[in-house]
Order: sequence, then structure tokens, then C-alpha cells
Amino acid sequence: MENLTNRQVVLRRRPTGLVQPDDVELVEAPVPELAEGEALVRTTYLGIDAAVRTWLDDARGYLPPVALGDPIRAGGVGEVVATRCATYAVGDVVTHLPGFQELAVVRDDVFTTVIPGVDDQLAMLTVHGATGATAYFGMTDIGKPQPGETVVVSAAGGATGSLAGQIAKIAGARVVGIAGGPEKCAVVVDEFGFDACIDHRGPDLTAALKEHCPQRVDVYFDNVGGPILDAVLGRLAQGGRVALCGVISSYLTGEHPGPRNYTALLARSGLMQGFNTLDQWDRFPEAFAALRGWEADGRLVHRAHVHDGLEHAVDALNGLFTGANIGKTVVKVADPST
Amino acid sequence: MENLTNRQVVLRRRPTGLVQPDDVELVEAPVPELAEGEALVRTTYLGIDAAVRTWLDDARGYLPPVALGDPIRAGGVGEVVATRCATYAVGDVVTHLPGFQELAVVRDDVFTTVIPGVDDQLAMLTVHGATGATAYFGMTDIGKPQPGETVVVSAAGGATGSLAGQIAKIAGARVVGIAGGPEKCAVVVDEFGFDACIDHRGPDLTAALKEHCPQRVDVYFDNVGGPILDAVLGRLAQGGRVALCGVISSYLTGEHPGPRNYTALLARSGLMQGFNTLDQWDRFPEAFAALRGWEADGRLVHRAHVHDGLEHAVDALNGLFTGANIGKTVVKVADPST
Repeated sequence: MENLTNRQVVLRRRPTGLVQPDDVELVEAPVPELAEGEALVRTTYLGIDAAVRTWLDDARGYLPPVALGDPIRAGGVGEVVATRCATYAVGDVVTHLPGFQELAVVRDDVFTTVIPGVDDQLAMLTVHGATGATAYFGMTDIGKPQPGETVVVSAAGGATGSLAGQIAKIAGARVVGIAGGPEKCAVVVDEFGFDACIDHRGPDLTAALKEHCPQRVDVYFDNVGGPILDAVLGRLAQGGRVALCGVISSYLTGEHPGPRNYTALLARSGLMQGFNTLDQWDRFPEAFAALRGWEADGRLVHRAHVHDGLEHAVDALNGLFTGANIGKTVVKVADPST
Repeated sequence: MENLTNRQVVLRRRPTGLVQPDDVELVEAPVPELAEGEALVRTTYLGIDAAVRTWLDDARGYLPPVALGDPIRAGGVGEVVATRCATYAVGDVVTHLPGFQELAVVRDDVFTTVIPGVDDQLAMLTVHGATGATAYFGMTDIGKPQPGETVVVSAAGGATGSLAGQIAKIAGARVVGIAGGPEKCAVVVDEFGFDACIDHRGPDLTAALKEHCPQRVDVYFDNVGGPILDAVLGRLAQGGRVALCGVISSYLTGEHPGPRNYTALLARSGLMQGFNTLDQWDRFPEAFAALRGWEADGRLVHRAHVHDGLEHAVDALNGLFTGANIGKTVVKVADPST
């Protein structure tokens, strides 16, 4: 233990917009002696999602902001390398909240869960983890896609969107993605199997929605907010459902317009609903059973954009907002031993 | 028949903002000979709601705009005075869509319904009509107030809001109204029995909501949209429900901001849903049975602001937007014979 050092990316200054080099520092820190009830976990992969950026702002969300000097908070997968806690044995694979660091001390808490029989640690951050559960609950509980209905998913090339759209396809819906750039749109159709994908950088999103959704939009799975939410609301079908998953368009600036076209909810008896995946904790087994079944059938594919090395973690995070990543954004911190 | 003349308020010019004298004309028109399958109804009361104003704009909603030269469209109550239709007998009391006129020719259609045993024609426009059904379905199906929860209702002195709040009280909730001016707020508390009423003309709506809703807002019944919707969203409780009933703040101008605070739906797993009372046509008996029961128990009161004479119909309509009216806005066109 005393011989181990820990590398961390700590927050030095609260960023404005994208995280700048001077906002963070890569430091070496000693690994503390484990107390009774603690274990040490070596991070293999960090999962990067937009929430990571929101935690850098000085505003209380469902978790407090990251303190200056602390490692940037993020979820991940790791392996237990030392233990003084009955819950964890050396060699266990856990999902937890290590932050941007190689080694994390954990206790027996809700954020640290031993996953038995893991054969693919990377997939714990895509289809077999919170991302998969988010796509499942948002689409299944709020979207409720029916055969023949039209479903639109924004950030369709992203971790959650790519899965949400495939879940709607499995339910028998016609699925139209929205993504940034022709390369990403091609992946959404060719790899994730969407029926079509609209490039939101194109000249006229409203016209594209009209073309690709002639029967209007029964379900919208929204990861982005902003003008795209407004455009899709303007195309909502009678009885349409909007599952609110994220507002990535506003996370960098904190600013966002309200959706003027929310009045479509009145005109068309529509519904718009937010959800928190963690509220569904006791239904995670249901979600994972369904997702694993579809994956085994070959009906659900997942993809990760892996950035190799903790020193690239900030680039990975910024890539979420510049649209550089396809699939789940992941930082590989160490090789998994399994 | 040939001796009857009909007075009508017809649309001459599409209004901007409030309806101006030159936008309309009070005319006399001949009453056409009834064809087979038609009946003639003498209007007793017209019910004026905000939708009447929206129909004057050149934009298709769930009904087409009123054509220039036609009577302004509005719902009402009347008595059959002549008939060549098997559905209607002379003396029948009907609810229908007569528009701003004394006499209307009707056919056997969905908009014209014979109501048996009416002892209070005015109440057909408040608690026993579409207004009552709107309050019932919006509050019951979307709001779902539970005992001890906090419910907020905007336009609480209005026809729908006053009933919606009372329905939430009956369900055991704590009910806070929002209305314009101290006089109206006093009526909301003293007559409609709300626990409190916030004057939205006061200096700080956000602070007032915090004071009167210390446990945040579980249900919001929204008649107004605009900045008030945004303020209440900012106070939404975990799992809160917003029933969207109207956007009166925008009907005059067609302009409205989107609700920036819709992100509260994400942060608090909230729901915002619109509805159309007419979609619930087959459940109207359920609504009316409940409303009549509560009225008989003395737990539900209703009030109308009656403008006497067709020549005051435009003033009645404008009064909706200037906040001059308390309770259901009604124009008495003729004395009921029952």
C-alpha cells in the first residue's frame, strides 16, 4: 500500500464553457492507509457523461459541486485491489464513483456495487450500466412506443440515444435520429439501425422533421433541449410523449431558452416528463435482463469511444460537447485483468 | 319564422390585442327558413372563455378561425323554439355553439346536446358544463392531488381555476391560488375556500410561492402560461405534476416565452401534460355526477359574472384579458323560460 501512488485529475478553477488546461491539474497523491470498512479499487474505465460537466459548476444539483482541489467526479468500473471491508473481496469488479483517478478508496455504500460474472468491463458503462438503464426506463416508461409509431431521438449517436432508439425499434416503432454531422448520422443508421437520421447542422431542421416524420412525432427522447426540443415539439402528434433525459445544449453555458412550443402539449394533449434513473434502482434487474436479452439476440448493439489514459480524461469530457464522440465516451485508466 | 329577426355580433376585422369597436358589428339578419333536419334555438346565455379570442386570429387551432362576416363563435345555452329535426322538440334546453347571436339554426350534431331536467341554465356554463368537466379532468387525471399535498392554481378567480382548486381541496390537498388583485384574491379564499391566494401583481411572485408553498408544489393547474408558469416550475416538488389548461397570457399577442424552468421536470422527475376536455366525451357523466354531488354537499360553489345583453358580449370577452371578471364570464342574451 505505501508503495502505491495515485494519479488524479483535480479541479483547480471552475471552468467557463469547455474545460481549459488551467482549470485542472494532473497530480500524484499518496494512497491513504485503509481504515476498517474500506477497500481500495483500481479504476479500469471511467464513463464520461454530461453530468460530469455540470458538477464542475458552483450550483447544487442532485449531487453537490466538486470542490476545488478534489478529483473531478465521474462514474466508472474498477477492480478491488485491497480490502478491509467484508462487502468487497480482492478481485471483485465494481461499478462505483471513483472520479478522475487511478485508485479510489470505497466503503459499503450505494454508489459501489459488486457485479458478479463480468466478462466485459467496458459494457458495464454502456448497455449493462446506468446508461442502458436510462435508455430503457426513459423509453419504456415515458415514451411507451407502439408498433408503427414514429419515435425521434436526439443525440442519437450518443451513449443513451443510440440505445434508446434501438429499444424503440425493438418495440416496433419507426425511429428517426437527430445527430451532428453526416459521419455520425451514417453510424446511427448503419450501425444502430435507425430508419433515418437528421443532421441538425443542416439548413432546416423543421423541414427535415416534416420530411422524415410525415405522421408527426409520437415519442421524442430528448437529450439536448434548446432549439431542437422546440422544433420537435412543433411536430408533436396527438397524444405525443416527450421523455426528458438531458439538456446538453445548456450545460456549458447554464443558459437555455424555454421551449416556446410547449403549447403543443395543450393543442395535442401531449406529455413531457423528466425522470431520474436512480429512482428506479429496484427495477434495474428488469432493465438489465431485457437489455442483455436483446443484446444476445443481436437486436441491440453498443459502442464506446475509448480515450486511452487518464491524461486524456478532460479531452474526453470536452468531446461530449464538441460532438467528437460516437457511442459512450470512456476513458481507459488501466487494463482490466478479466 | 318569417317575422323573426336575429341580432348578431359579426367579425369585420381581425383584432390585434383586445377586440376594438371597429373589429365587430352588431347587425340584424333574417332568420332562414328551416330545412328538414334543422331546428332553431334561442340563445339564453353565452359562455365566454379565452378560446373565443383565439378563434378570431387567422390560425387554425382545433377549430378553424371565424370567417370575416360570421358571428363570433362561442358556446352557450338555449331553448328550441322551432324544429324540423326529430332530435329536438320545442322547449328543449340545449348546450350548443350558437356564436354571438340571438337565434341559431342547429342540426343533430356533436355540438348540440339536449340536457334534460335543467333547473339552472346558467349553471350549465359553470359547474355542469364543459368548464366543470375541464376542471375535473385536468385536476383528477393529471394533477391527481393527494391528501396533504400542495396544489397551486392560476387564474384562481376564473371559471375553471375556481372549480379546479375546490376539487383539489375536496381531495384533501392544501390549495394556493394565484389571481390578479386583492379583491379577486379575497374572493378566492373567502368564497372558493382556497387556503391562500397570491396576487401575481405583487412585487415578488417567487418569494410569495416560497412563503405559501414551504413544501414546494406537488400539482400546478396552469391556466396562464408565461412568467407565472415559469415561477411555479421553479418551485416544483419531486414528482410534481403540471396540468396545462391554457395560456391566457399569450392569447392576445400570440407571443409567449417558453418556460425556461421546464428543466425542473428533469431535476425533479416532474410531468407536464396538456389535455382536451372534448377527448373525454364518454366520461362526461362521471364528471358531472361527481360535480353535482359535491355541489349538493355544499363543498363546491360556482359563480358567474353575467353581462346583460348581446351588445355587451365584446366587453365580456375583453374582460377575460383585463382581469375584470370573477367566476365564469357569461353574456345573458335572453331570459330563460325555465
